[in-house]
Amino acid sequence: MKNFNAITDYSREEIEQLVGLADRLDKHPEPRSLEGKVLSLLFLNRSLRTLASFQASMIRLGGGTFVISPEMSIYGLESRSGIIMDGTAAEHLKEAVPVIASYGDAIGIRAMAKMEDLQQDLQDQAFGELVSHVTTPYVNMESAMEHPCQNLADWKTMNDLGIPGQGGKFVLSWSWHPNPQPLATAVSTLKMAALRGMDITILRPEGYQLPQPVMQTARSLADQSGGSLSESEDRREAMEGAHTLYVNSWSSCEFYSRPQSEDRFKSSLRDWCIDSSWFESAEPDCRFMHCLPIRRGVAALDEVLDSPRSVVIEESRNRMLSQMAVLHRMLSTPEY
Amino acid sequence: MKNFNAITDYSREEIEQLVGLADRLDKHPEPRSLEGKVLSLLFLNRSLRTLASFQASMIRLGGGTFVISPEMSIYGLESRSGIIMDGTAAEHLKEAVPVIASYGDAIGIRAMAKMEDLQQDLQDQAFGELVSHVTTPYVNMESAMEHPCQNLADWKTMNDLGIPGQGGKFVLSWSWHPNPQPLATAVSTLKMAALRGMDITILRPEGYQLPQPVMQTARSLADQSGGSLSESEDRREAMEGAHTLYVNSWSSCEFYSRPQSEDRFKSSLRDWCIDSSWFESAEPDCRFMHCLPIRRGVAALDEVLDSPRSVVIEESRNRMLSQMAVLHRMLSTPEY
Amino acid sequence: MKNFNAITDYSREEIEQLVGLADRLDKHPEPRSLEGKVLSLLFLNRSLRTLASFQASMIRLGGGTFVISPEMSIYGLESRSGIIMDGTAAEHLKEAVPVIASYGDAIGIRAMAKMEDLQQDLQDQAFGELVSHVTTPYVNMESAMEHPCQNLADWKTMNDLGIPGQGGKFVLSWSWHPNPQPLATAVSTLKMAALRGMDITILRPEGYQLPQPVMQTARSLADQSGGSLSESEDRREAMEGAHTLYVNSWSSCEFYSRPQSEDRFKSSLRDWCIDSSWFESAEPDCRFMHCLPIRRGVAALDEVLDSPRSVVIEESRNRMLSQMAVLHRMLSTPEY
Repeated sequence: MKNFNAITDYSREEIEQLVGLADRLDKHPEPRSLEGKVLSLLFLNRSLRTLASFQASMIRLGGGTFVISPEMSIYGLESRSGIIMDGTAAEHLKEAVPVIASYGDAIGIRAMAKMEDLQQDLQDQAFGELVSHVTTPYVNMESAMEHPCQNLADWKTMNDLGIPGQGGKFVLSWSWHPNPQPLATAVSTLKMAALRGMDITILRPEGYQLPQPVMQTARSLADQSGGSLSESEDRREAMEGAHTLYVNSWSSCEFYSRPQSEDRFKSSLRDWCIDSSWFESAEPDCRFMHCLPIRRGVAALDEVLDSPRSVVIEESRNRMLSQMAVLHRMLSTPEY
Repeated sequence: MKNFNAITDYSREEIEQLVGLADRLDKHPEPRSLEGKVLSLLFLNRSLRTLASFQASMIRLGGGTFVISPEMSIYGLESRSGIIMDGTAAEHLKEAVPVIASYGDAIGIRAMAKMEDLQQDLQDQAFGELVSHVTTPYVNMESAMEHPCQNLADWKTMNDLGIPGQGGKFVLSWSWHPNPQPLATAVSTLKMAALRGMDITILRPEGYQLPQPVMQTARSLADQSGGSLSESEDRREAMEGAHTLYVNSWSSCEFYSRPQSEDRFKSSLRDWCIDSSWFESAEPDCRFMHCLPIRRGVAALDEVLDSPRSVVIEESRNRMLSQMAVLHRMLSTPEY
Repeated sequence: MKNFNAITDYSREEIEQLVGLADRLDKHPEPRSLEGKVLSLLFLNRSLRTLASFQASMIRLGGGTFVISPEMSIYGLESRSGIIMDGTAAEHLKEAVPVIASYGDAIGIRAMAKMEDLQQDLQDQAFGELVSHVTTPYVNMESAMEHPCQNLADWKTMNDLGIPGQGGKFVLSWSWHPNPQPLATAVSTLKMAALRGMDITILRPEGYQLPQPVMQTARSLADQSGGSLSESEDRREAMEGAHTLYVNSWSSCEFYSRPQSEDRFKSSLRDWCIDSSWFESAEPDCRFMHCLPIRRGVAALDEVLDSPRSVVIEESRNRMLSQMAVLHRMLSTPEY
């Protein structure tokens, strides 16, 4: 494995092998498999789970990490090309990225959507620019459109819970959030569920359709995998027979890069906060999934988060195990 | 060992075994005993010694750590129950704590006293709430009332110096400090010395008595261990024959959560700053102990801190060694 | 090796042995050579390369690090002697340094020039004071006048590129910078090149002569090593036949600690920004070296930094490898 950039770079069989490896490393630790190996971690955005879980992943395999983020380490990193750097930033990403990468056997990079230009974000331009400076293997720790470690963790979580691929009903629901939120988790989760062959319903209010190119890709993946894809803004209808409700907040493409307009538009949508009643038409043991962080009382009520439906902690722990599988595949010798 | 929460959870014999293990690991390193093991570290308050020494402890045993603190990693962590999280904090401790714990084989948590409500702090309510979300073993890295790693380190330090348990004279003195200070170190140190069977004098000005329930517990421990407990505000009398002077700053229970009132009350107490004259009636080699950080010229003069009496660096290094013993006992397989 | 403080503490032969060890550890990793060993890292100034590369160095040898810096961990560290600490800083370096050192088998310290007093900085007084509190081995991670890890990395980089010692032409050029910059890199690089026996030209505008005592030392080193040392402000003349152009920004000794006066003085010197034309009289494959961070468009144009002349990433990676050699020599048992 050279890089780990998008869940859709892998076939279902390859993903199942990674999940199997994650399971094996959980049950049968290999604390020397990556001894002396270094994973460089570059965070251009804040993080808790990703920051913690990647460090833990490498320690469990016998290696280690170091963390660089603009606020922790340096006086800001310049990203614009061709600029005369006589302001605050003392270093350009054109130097910082290859330097940081050069200290590791691989590098993990988080660079979330800038949310200034939808087309640029849809093409993951900023992340592509960053990894163009890297010669080692890299791991996408969340870019404008991809979050493959989350996707792999969620796939594993559904396996652990016995939620099937083909025949499994997956509802991806929008929830209200006070701030503009990037599309990466919603978009990549949709593609993950489609690749898995699930029957997917996107539950969202008018104005929160996902971008057309994403929908086309997801539909094509669903077709190939024996799944289906539909959209609804009717909660009862969408949740009918659901095995899991995957909740996420994302910005409206109509108001992308115009947060104040979106604020006004979504001011009537605060009831897009998941409570127990959402599950009335679902399977009795329908699960609640969320990538975290989640705002209690805003995206979901305590009655949901504190109920047995919620598997958010399991998803988080699977982040670590999934990443161990990816790193083991990427860095252990001989090739697994 | 499941958790390490309070020095008084252990008998003198058990503590001596831990100290013995700390000594052994110092002299005979076991750099593979915790290979691949992860200690999660959650700091809700700032730290130097605890932050550094726990990282060093795990490295020396072959494992590793990661650190999460609100200011380093995330946009604040919400702690209130039942709240609608539409402000700054993007994540609740109800998710953050179990997630962080799930990446480790154990978790260390620092959550010092909020100093809003003495009764809540006396019962260590906030810390109890935090660890209720944890299923792995945990280590108390300082709560409102406990600081067991410091206590164990101080016990070892006194052993190293030949300061006896029964028959040893231990003076716990208050010192002036510009800011309100929590009770944890004073309270847990008092109980440690009582459990050790020492003859204890608490030297403090009027208004700085320790809470009655704590005094009762300490008196009972002293009785059982063959020690004694008294209070004084007379320096010469208190220091008579002392083997060690343990200095700490703590808030007045009379003014708890009312810092401005305490400021006025203690404005006349700035001479509670230890200088050489305090030792005149003590044993000639009476030691000066302090958990650090210490404000020079405020809690003690340079002439004390720079003298051979001071063993503050030794205490700090024993933090690391004591924690190695705790972690080894907690995490090595087979059970030590 | 007890400490690693200055490149001039070593002979050419000893340096070549360290470089050889760095090469060996690159080609033949020794991921258990420092197992269980801890390097304490104290940063009194911000860092990217040093912060990252020391962490990576220790992981690659099987040990680990922890990082303490005033802004990351604590409420400021007091450095003044004899002060009454009733302000913000809660801890003095007189405690913090020995405590941090006591957790490690060695300590790395970065304490760059305060730039308040040239004579104090020339004598590295502040760094000397810090290490006076340390009993373990220490590594200078940049002080007011020394940057030995950079020097060793640059020596190795020139070896890797086949740039000779005797007979190699080394141009050390000043470049414009918006802020006052310390002398450490320029001064220690000059001494490194002199020790290496190179023919050195310092290319700088009037007012940017390096301090006389430094020039004397460098001249003496050059004499002993069969090299030479000259100064010029004529670019074409200075670059004639150069094998490498080493660029750095440093403050004028005439205006040391008077940044506003220097700002006025250097306002006419913004064309001291390296572009392709600087290389016209040099050897065809003359290299561009810089310790980073570098301000694009200010110290050098993109056309230089993005050209094959630039070896700044190679220099950075050699930081890690050189430090691995130093740490291996310092901490592995038996003595290498």
